[in-house]
Amino acid sequence: MPAASLVCFHSLISGAVEHRLMSRVKHWNQNCSLKISASLSDQSFQPAAKSLPITSKVETLLDSVKWDSKGLAVAIAQNVDTGAILMQGFANKEALAVTIASRKATFYSRSRSTLWTKGETSMNFINVHDIFLDCDHDSIIYLGKPVGPTCHTGAETCYYSSVYDLLGDQESIQDHLASTTLYSLEATISQRKDEIDSLKNGKSSWTKKLLLDNELLCSKVREEASELVETLLQNEDKTRTASEMADLIYHAMVLLKLKDVKMEEVLEVLRKRFSQSGIEEKSSRKRSSNPS
Amino acid sequence: MPAASLVCFHSLISGAVEHRLMSRVKHWNQNCSLKISASLSDQSFQPAAKSLPITSKVETLLDSVKWDSKGLAVAIAQNVDTGAILMQGFANKEALAVTIASRKATFYSRSRSTLWTKGETSMNFINVHDIFLDCDHDSIIYLGKPVGPTCHTGAETCYYSSVYDLLGDQESIQDHLASTTLYSLEATISQRKDEIDSLKNGKSSWTKKLLLDNELLCSKVREEASELVETLLQNEDKTRTASEMADLIYHAMVLLKLKDVKMEEVLEVLRKRFSQSGIEEKSSRKRSSNPS
Repeated sequence: MPAASLVCFHSLISGAVEHRLMSRVKHWNQNCSLKISASLSDQSFQPAAKSLPITSKVETLLDSVKWDSKGLAVAIAQNVDTGAILMQGFANKEALAVTIASRKATFYSRSRSTLWTKGETSMNFINVHDIFLDCDHDSIIYLGKPVGPTCHTGAETCYYSSVYDLLGDQESIQDHLASTTLYSLEATISQRKDEIDSLKNGKSSWTKKLLLDNELLCSKVREEASELVETLLQNEDKTRTASEMADLIYHAMVLLKLKDVKMEEVLEVLRKRFSQSGIEEKSSRKRSSNPS
Repeated sequence: MPAASLVCFHSLISGAVEHRLMSRVKHWNQNCSLKISASLSDQSFQPAAKSLPITSKVETLLDSVKWDSKGLAVAIAQNVDTGAILMQGFANKEALAVTIASRKATFYSRSRSTLWTKGETSMNFINVHDIFLDCDHDSIIYLGKPVGPTCHTGAETCYYSSVYDLLGDQESIQDHLASTTLYSLEATISQRKDEIDSLKNGKSSWTKKLLLDNELLCSKVREEASELVETLLQNEDKTRTASEMADLIYHAMVLLKLKDVKMEEVLEVLRKRFSQSGIEEKSSRKRSSNPS
């Protein structure tokens, strides 16, 4: 490993803020064993000896952020697999520097005037896979994987109050997480399963029929896969392909529910294959070792 | 429709801010034809005559937000289908009120000290499907569907600068959008297709092999569907189910690429089935009209 990549974290940061940063980092870095190289090398970063010292690169990057008059920028933590927005806080220069080096989502608490790493007390860290700046360099995404629930209430994310629910006419408002399409569908399928399990007299539905009949469900998954394939072989319109893929995903997700598997787990499998040797190579190996 | 639901938008807002709001809303509301009922009724909101007037409900909700010392809260626009964070701005009370009523993502511009609706000049609106407040009521998600690219640069989202790319050793840094797992996979498959199309000598890969051989691809999609089904029928471990579902999604996404269909289009199909009569009923109808 080139010497430049062995720079210790504390040398990245100018002296004035070093002490505070080091006390922050000590949770996971008792002996300054956390090296910028170690935290970066498992992703897209491959430092080379000829490059500028990482220290100055980090400093240049930190200076490129348009910090507001209080030295802050908005920092949004997002689940790398599901896309769920987990929480939003603010980062100052030190918080971003710590996050870059430690890969633990770290913010600046405006109420306590101090850095805080999400999970430092609950251990529900957000392990950061990548960090993005917006076009104006004044807004940050920490794209990462949460360990446990993110919200202090125990909810998966901090966003569970729908404005339109609050404005609605329900006598009691149930929390519902801000969910994108795939996870709204997953929640609906879960609800149908709960209705079956609790013997509630909900209205009949196709999902319930599938959940109660493995043979029917399996034949539908196979059938939808065949119909998807036919759209390619028969050169059908692309809207047919989108429609058949939607059918396949829905029926396969009902099967996932019966096996108690979440889409997030499936996406984690995909991500890990990706980032190790690539799904392509893995699929290829599987095929050659087990031709079918 | 109950009388209470026919409240005109301008009556929702207290007099002091009404004029500014109405000029903002006139783009899509020349004759005050935009009614809160119309904008809410297609989602989860069903006002009834016995309910409190919507006006006071909206006012109560707006007052429940913890606006900062400048009267602002962070507002994040997120794609309802893909989960992509499109942009981040700030909302004041009026901006949130306009967004609730108009379902067009609206912000407060700190530099111009005025409201602005994303898309008011470019027509690239973000059509809001739901709005969420976080646990502290000081952060807002506009969950919506963008019309065209969100970023003023023409990029799909404003987040295309990876910190780890910027800290890396590349001589030229290519923009890459902040993407969650499914869309990173989609981008990789697209890249393989581009390499084939441009006759570039990229390294060989399983994805390329699939892209070049319809028969092989179709047999793999069918095979992976069967293997997924077997994990249920043979009561295999749930990790096998997650793995086979990952295989199925990957191979099906290669097929989508050949048909030039994006996962976002598939998710849009799922969402529309959902919100109309429910995918369950639709699937059921399809089945009874076309048994197979």
